[in-house]
Amino acid sequence: MKELSRFGVSIEKGLLEQFDVLLKDRNYTNRSEALRDLIRKELIQKQWEEGKEIVGAITFVYDHHRRDMIGKITEIQHNFHDLIISAMHVHLDHNNCVEIIAVKGSSSKVVELSNMLRAIKGVKHCTLSMSSTGKEII
Amino acid sequence: MKELSRFGVSIEKGLLEQFDVLLKDRNYTNRSEALRDLIRKELIQKQWEEGKEIVGAITFVYDHHRRDMIGKITEIQHNFHDLIISAMHVHLDHNNCVEIIAVKGSSSKVVELSNMLRAIKGVKHCTLSMSSTGKEII
Amino acid sequence: MKELSRFGVSIEKGLLEQFDVLLKDRNYTNRSEALRDLIRKELIQKQWEEGKEIVGAITFVYDHHRRDMIGKITEIQHNFHDLIISAMHVHLDHNNCVEIIAVKGSSSKVVELSNMLRAIKGVKHCTLSMSSTGKEII
Amino acid sequence: MKELSRFGVSIEKGLLEQFDVLLKDRNYTNRSEALRDLIRKELIQKQWEEGKEIVGAITFVYDHHRRDMIGKITEIQHNFHDLIISAMHVHLDHNNCVEIIAVKGSSSKVVELSNMLRAIKGVKHCTLSMSSTGKEII
Repeated sequence: MKELSRFGVSIEKGLLEQFDVLLKDRNYTNRSEALRDLIRKELIQKQWEEGKEIVGAITFVYDHHRRDMIGKITEIQHNFHDLIISAMHVHLDHNNCVEIIAVKGSSSKVVELSNMLRAIKGVKHCTLSMSSTGKEII
Repeated sequence: MKELSRFGVSIEKGLLEQFDVLLKDRNYTNRSEALRDLIRKELIQKQWEEGKEIVGAITFVYDHHRRDMIGKITEIQHNFHDLIISAMHVHLDHNNCVEIIAVKGSSSKVVELSNMLRAIKGVKHCTLSMSSTGKEII
Repeated sequence: MKELSRFGVSIEKGLLEQFDVLLKDRNYTNRSEALRDLIRKELIQKQWEEGKEIVGAITFVYDHHRRDMIGKITEIQHNFHDLIISAMHVHLDHNNCVEIIAVKGSSSKVVELSNMLRAIKGVKHCTLSMSSTGKEII
Repeated sequence: MKELSRFGVSIEKGLLEQFDVLLKDRNYTNRSEALRDLIRKELIQKQWEEGKEIVGAITFVYDHHRRDMIGKITEIQHNFHDLIISAMHVHLDHNNCVEIIAVKGSSSKVVELSNMLRAIKGVKHCTLSMSSTGKEII
């Protein structure tokens, strides 16, 4: 169990009431947990900006009928094999696939990989979810 | 003076240490104030999503040499005169101006005005800062 | 093969030069493909705003040692089983896991699921990648 | 008049139709202008990431009844006087003011100023609009 620090926070009454409404909306049962999540979000953003080792998910949608599609995607992934932890492939319909790649490494390398996948003709959309290894984020 | 509520927060020791570093970076002298700011940011985002009355700033850069530029910008602003509180105009160099308009009204109307200004030929860039009337945000 | 439309675009010489530099940076070999990607990005953002059927990836990092963690995560996922296509689980280190869930459904439902996972104590971070079924995005 | 380059773009028929709907929504009368705006948006984002000289607007809402408020805001602005082009002040209601500062300088300095204003007790919300001097953005 992680050691907890306790401290007091003072917030204007009306602001706290609005926060409590927001928490209920978002399914929190506990103010501390909601505040911890807001704090972690800021810290993880900082990790990305500073080029730290991070974890992310690259999600891209493509039409697998395009010629050479699979070949190009596979080749790029192999060139970045040390970044890629694992990949998940979903057949959305007759034409469309979504592939989600879990990545770990420096944020700049991960952005580079995401840009390379986005640039492939036939990749319709590519987004990058910026998360964390969790190691320094308690 | 606004009435304050006090409550205890418990946060993992290591997480709190990282938060304190972040606070120092960002010039906060006080955890409560930093947490209040994180809370208000979420609440104001919600106000925008729900179409509440908000305050914003529309910032757009343009080349004033373009024919009819000033005429078009003025006409659009007049059509939305009930949204616009005031405008500030800066001459950046021989060609470029930046104009910043303070707006108050429903978030959807403000987005519409921002879209109309962005679409003018000669407007190089237009961004919308989403803030609040402060009224419900304590 | 999709039917292509061809049309002419006129862009200031200097702006086009800067765009070409950006394209090279981002690995595009072709202006049309880069412009198509910019267009699709706007269209997919609109699909999310309008509550259309979308595809997304929810990425969340957690400490699996937390009591009841796995139970809660599993229960929530079952409650949203009609949204969830498939899940990928990665063991990051002795304590930390990242789980990535591919989801398909209305954007509001997907946001709700993402909020519920984020609110669980022990979930350190949860992000939502907003993508598309690809169906209407050509 | 800026020299124009003309080139052909080929886009899937269905995608172009969707783009045309989007353009109409956003008040564009012209595909080229819409594409130029998408390009400029990417270029300006790059200027900010690379620490170039940029233009921005800092919008902050505060309660002017707070003790020392005005003093602190004024002092910080003076410390960054070389960044600040001009300021606009709006009285929103009996308590709330919004102040919008037009800034020009390195993106990192502007972010620093924005962080300092946000951290002041009594400043309820502070956002930074990232725009451009327009100089390199044609």
